[in-house]
Parts: sequence; C-alpha cells; structure tokens
Amino acid sequence: MQSEIITIGDELLIGQVVDTNSAWMAQRLNEIGVELKQITSVHDDETHIRKALDEAFSRADIVFTTGGLGPTKDDITKLVMASYFDTRLVESAAVKKHIYELYKNRPEVLNRLTETQWMVPEKAEILENRVGSAPLMVFVRNECKNKKQWLFAMPGVPYEMKIAMEEQILPYLSEHVLSGAERQITHRTVMVSGIPESSLAIVLEPWETALPKDIRLAYLPKDGTIRLRLSGYGVMPARVDEEKRRLTELVKEWLVAEEDKPLEVLVGERLKAEKATIATAESCTGGKLAALLNKHAGSSAFYMGSVVAYSNEVKHQVLGVSADALNHYGAVSEQVVRQMAEGVRRLMHTDYAIATSGIAGPDGGSAEKPVGTVWMAWATPEGTFAECFRLGTLREQITDRACMKALIRMLQLIK
Amino acid sequence: MQSEIITIGDELLIGQVVDTNSAWMAQRLNEIGVELKQITSVHDDETHIRKALDEAFSRADIVFTTGGLGPTKDDITKLVMASYFDTRLVESAAVKKHIYELYKNRPEVLNRLTETQWMVPEKAEILENRVGSAPLMVFVRNECKNKKQWLFAMPGVPYEMKIAMEEQILPYLSEHVLSGAERQITHRTVMVSGIPESSLAIVLEPWETALPKDIRLAYLPKDGTIRLRLSGYGVMPARVDEEKRRLTELVKEWLVAEEDKPLEVLVGERLKAEKATIATAESCTGGKLAALLNKHAGSSAFYMGSVVAYSNEVKHQVLGVSADALNHYGAVSEQVVRQMAEGVRRLMHTDYAIATSGIAGPDGGSAEKPVGTVWMAWATPEGTFAECFRLGTLREQITDRACMKALIRMLQLIK
Repeated sequence: MQSEIITIGDELLIGQVVDTNSAWMAQRLNEIGVELKQITSVHDDETHIRKALDEAFSRADIVFTTGGLGPTKDDITKLVMASYFDTRLVESAAVKKHIYELYKNRPEVLNRLTETQWMVPEKAEILENRVGSAPLMVFVRNECKNKKQWLFAMPGVPYEMKIAMEEQILPYLSEHVLSGAERQITHRTVMVSGIPESSLAIVLEPWETALPKDIRLAYLPKDGTIRLRLSGYGVMPARVDEEKRRLTELVKEWLVAEEDKPLEVLVGERLKAEKATIATAESCTGGKLAALLNKHAGSSAFYMGSVVAYSNEVKHQVLGVSADALNHYGAVSEQVVRQMAEGVRRLMHTDYAIATSGIAGPDGGSAEKPVGTVWMAWATPEGTFAECFRLGTLREQITDRACMKALIRMLQLIK
Repeated sequence: MQSEIITIGDELLIGQVVDTNSAWMAQRLNEIGVELKQITSVHDDETHIRKALDEAFSRADIVFTTGGLGPTKDDITKLVMASYFDTRLVESAAVKKHIYELYKNRPEVLNRLTETQWMVPEKAEILENRVGSAPLMVFVRNECKNKKQWLFAMPGVPYEMKIAMEEQILPYLSEHVLSGAERQITHRTVMVSGIPESSLAIVLEPWETALPKDIRLAYLPKDGTIRLRLSGYGVMPARVDEEKRRLTELVKEWLVAEEDKPLEVLVGERLKAEKATIATAESCTGGKLAALLNKHAGSSAFYMGSVVAYSNEVKHQVLGVSADALNHYGAVSEQVVRQMAEGVRRLMHTDYAIATSGIAGPDGGSAEKPVGTVWMAWATPEGTFAECFRLGTLREQITDRACMKALIRMLQLIK
C-alpha cells in the first residue's frame, strides 16, 4: 500500500523546527508494509493544503497529516479538513470529557480557545489523543468505486504524534485498512566501516548486478559507517535473507554489525551480555558520547558515568592526568587520552572506558594538529589502546564522527 | 521570490535518515528574502523526480534539490537532470582536476566509479564542491518569456550541502538571481516560558487581531518555551520591530529572551559577558546538558566540564554527595541535587553549576516520584536554588525538557 505524509506548518518552512516526525513515521509504516511515496511540507495556508491533499490522493491510498491542530489562530488544519471533506464542525462529548480529564489539575488551561478543541468535523471518526487536546481525525474517501482512501490527521508535536501512531493509528491500519495480502517490504541492513563508498561499490558490483529486480541495494553513508540496505519488494523475507548472507560474506573484512541498530545500542547489548560496565572521559566530544550511551532505557545496567574534562585543570585534578603529559605533549595527544581513559576507569570502577581529546575548531588548530585531529583511547581489561583520527573540518561533524569511531572500536574490543 | 526544496533519496522515505538539511536551508533562504513554498521528499525514481520538478517549477522561481549525486548505482539525480534539461554528459576538466586534488592522499578512492563524478550535464553551470566529489549544478530555464527559473542540485550529505550553500549558492543567488527590489521577509521572535499556549493566545488576542494584514504571528511551542514569531511580508523591518516592542510588553511576565537563539547560546553569551564559568553534574540528563553547553565554538571560555554521575557510587565518590542523603532521600531528591551542584562547582572551581537527577523511565517510577520527576539545582555565587519538575512520560522528552528548564532558570539567575 502507498502512503504519503503532509506536514502542515510555517515553522518547518522557515526552518525553525527540524522535521523528525516523518523519519519516525516512515520507519513504523515500513515495518507494517506501508510504503511511503512522498513527504510534502506546506504552509498553514488553505489553498496550498488543499492542493497537497489533491496531489497526495492522486498517488496514495493513505495520507497522514501532522500539525496545525492547536487551539491558536495560526492553526487551520481542522477547518480546512472540514471544508475539504464538505462537513461541518460539531461538539464531541467524548473529546470534551477527555479534555476536562486532561486538565483537571490545570483549570487555567480550560479557556475559550481550548474549548474549540472539542469541536470536530461531523464526517470524521475521532480517535483518542491520550496526551493532548487536539482530536485525532480519520476521514474515509470513496470517490473511485472499489477504492477506499484514508486520511489521518495528527498533531505535529513529536511525542503526541508518536503516541497517536502507536496507540491508535497503527492498530487502526492493521484492523481496518491493511489486508493480509498486502505487498510486503523487507529491509535488511549490514553496517561496514573502513572502506570508501566507491571502492565498496566496486567490490559489490558483480553481486549487485546479479540481484533480482525485486531486491534493491542502497548505500547509506553516515558518520564513518556505510549502511548497506537490501530492500525486497513483494518477495519472501527468506530471499532477502539469502542475499544478505552473500553480502555479509563479501564485506566481512569491514563488517561492523549485521543489523540496523544504532551503534550505541549494539555496544550496550554487548556490554550487558558480558555483564560489563563502561565510563567515558570526554574533552572534544563534550558529553555527547555519554548522552549516546545512556540514551536508551536500561543503560544503568552497564553505564556508570562520565567526566567531561573540557579544561586542562579538570583533566588533571579529576581524572589524574599528569601535568607533565599535558605540558609536554599537549591535551590532544596519545599520552593524555590514555591517562584520561585509565583515570576514569579507575575513578568509576568500570571494566571499559573511552576517552576523547581533539580539536573541534574552528580555532585551536596547528600545522601539526589541524582542526579535526582527535586522539582516542579505549581502556579495557586487556589493556589500553589508542588511535588518532582526522575527522573533518566542522565542529559538529568532528564530534559526531568521533563518537561513532569511539563506538565502532569499542564494539570490536568487547567482542 | 518563491523557492522549493526537493530532497531525493530512498533513505528519507524509509526513515533511515532525518532531514535536517531543509530546516537549515530554509533559515538561510529566509534571511535573504527567499520564501520557501514547499519541501518535497521523493524516491530515487526518475518518473517521480521529474513530476516533482514539474510541480515545483509550476509554483516557484528557484528549485533546490539535495541528494542522489553519489557515485553509486542508486544515485540517479545527475542522469535525471541531464534528461530533464535535454542535455548530454560531458567530461569537466575542472571537476576532474578538483577530484584529483581532493583525493591526492587517498589514491584508493580514485577508481572507475569516482571517475563518473567528473562527467557533467553540458547545459549546466558547474560550481565547485570544495569538500566532496559530486559537482554542484545550476540549470537555468527560460520557458516563459521574461521569467527565468533556476535549479540548483546539491549533495545530500549535510556538511557538503552547507558548504555548497554558504560558499557557492547563496553568493550566486545574490549576484545573479535576486534583485534589490525583492520582497523582504522580516522575522522577529520573542521567547516566553511558564504560561500555557492557549492562555497566552487569550492575553495576546486584542493586539493580534489588530495586527496589520502583512504582519503575521505564529506560536511555536518547544521544550517548555513558546517562541512567538512575527513575520512581516514586504514591510519595513521597523514596523515589525514596533509590533515586537508591543508584544514584548504584553508578555514581559513570562519573557525568556527577545531573540531567536538557542537557550544554550544565550546562557553562553551571558556567562562570557560576566566572565563567569559553569560546570554541570548530571544524572538523568546524562551528558546532554554538557553537550549543549559546549556545542558552539568558543565554549571553552565559560564551560569547564561536567560529571555525569549516572550511578550512586559516582554521585558519592566523585561529587561528594553524602551516603546519608542518598540513602535517606534517594537519588532523585532536593538534598542530592543540591549536593551534586555544589560538589561539581567545588570540584571544577566554577562560578555556576547545574545539577539534574530524575526518573527518565520507562522504569524506576513510584507513586510518590513517577516517571518524569526531575529535581534540579543551580549553584551560584549567591547560593544554591533547587526546584522539582514533572516533565512528561517519555525518556527523550523528559531529558530534553530538563535541559531546557535548566537553561531557562540559569539564564534568569545569571541576569
């Protein structure tokens, strides 16, 4: 089945907000075999919204909209939908009750703008928005004979949208929209590192050329890894698995993981399996590596803590890096990262530790150590390993890549 | 002038990558008075790309595409453009020279797939992509009399796109595309916190209703703040400034800042102005607050470091939180966050410190301290302040909001 997303709201088009919703929705939809044909972002503008709806319905069976459902004047999605589906607004007792419940401890929110939230289009089916006041709306179109089309309108606030999808819309799709015979999309991903994309493509070319037409390969380079994604359209998952085995064999020299999980999740899983613990000592990555390691639920089983040692005083006083090493070799050096990794491992009594120190720029570079130079060390029960990288020229790029390198190497060392 | 963005690539539509490019481009374009009408994400599929180009050119003067310019098989943008603009590929000596220069230290990358990168559409003007091998292409259409249209094709890798825009495309637009008489868009933003969106809308209603037609107000709620954005279309910036002054007066009770900068930038600027320093002690935010404070260049002037004290042992041993406080009140308590903030302030010899300890979930909640409960403390030269928040139910939402609350309060305390 084909679907499209229309995001409604000026904020995306003036760049005040990044659209993280669409990627999340795309993943969930793919998992249940709903292909996403197009994502369209339009302004809070009636003519433009109507045109986008027309175009989306010309290609897709299911259209999702996010945004424009707040109680304030600039939000017009509900009114536009009512007009588009030729219906009027009526009071919904269920939504009204829900809103009273939602704000029972915050009566100041129950003002006359909030009251407009329980007016809903008469032709829409209303699903419960457990965590917000905007009603979730489902419209069913039956314009062509034997071909139903659906529209789901959701709030744009990411966590409201996610709960709406998980608790209401995905179950609704399974129950009312999708049939067992739907076309199946199967994705399999293999992650590699340490080979340029074009060289990898040459290695894979004979196999890739021989791939059946209904299985496609995509290269997704990201932060020092390349994700090789196989997508099977309407084929048995076993056939995609078979091609994945061939692919894994071809890339075994550069293999990082055989699944599409974030690196920090893979590291966490391996640490948990080993009942081992980890800590980080960060200079240039500034806490990013820590935040990655504890991003997911359950991280307290393996992640103990970190010292972000941005200044040399902190490296010396908290992590015990010798003044000698700092003065003689500089903060961005093998000696210093080794002492940082060992220092935090000792301080926090962990099995493993990672340390980073680099020049994230834009200032602070030299001929010998240009911006992008990052020293890293991994302290393990088997000893401490250190490596130097050149990771680009832009601050965010350098620190993101440093985190990825740190995790890739850690993954190999825990093995 | 009207523009549109078309992002090309399966990866966005299966949700493997979040589109951060469009928001960044939108901001830059708005700054030079180029309005963004629509963002469209399509697959690496010739028919679909051509249709998206047709539609974009029916609405906009300038079309930007990102993605699909790599050397591998799945990338087809260049071929589609050549066919769309009815031209053939020819070798570009300039691009060839640039690619040799780019990979002079990595000859293994100069393989036959990389060589396809210096084949460019004959009718396109080629701009230099300083940091990558994919050529930047400019096509000029002149289909309607007296109405030129432009297409700029860029790589999708965020840092390549950004450098392409900054160094090549924005200057090209100023020089060749925009005239001085272009319609001017002026944005002004005021940030508030501590009032529900609908209550704020009621406070602002009389003033908002009286706004001239060419000045519009938008409410952008985000992480515990509401950004109120005034946009003036084709009006003198001074008129927008005047409305901003009225707005600021109306919201002064909840005012956080009078400009649209990230909170961590505002905190950094205020600390630098005071020549003051800061450190953080983080449990539930896990390094996120540290990473925010050192995200931008120049942070070493005020940011010293952090202790991410995820385990109680680290809270006790590194930050000096008393075993008594941990046992008696629990890790998520006023007593513990106060000791954490004071502990890291002492350890890192800073003027200010922020501490966070909360229940990010999904487990660990209780009736008394449900998931979402976060205690925070701010240690300052004038004493230590603590506050408890309930910040939602989802891990990422809770920790993001905790960072924002921490920064909002810090901003008020440095004042």
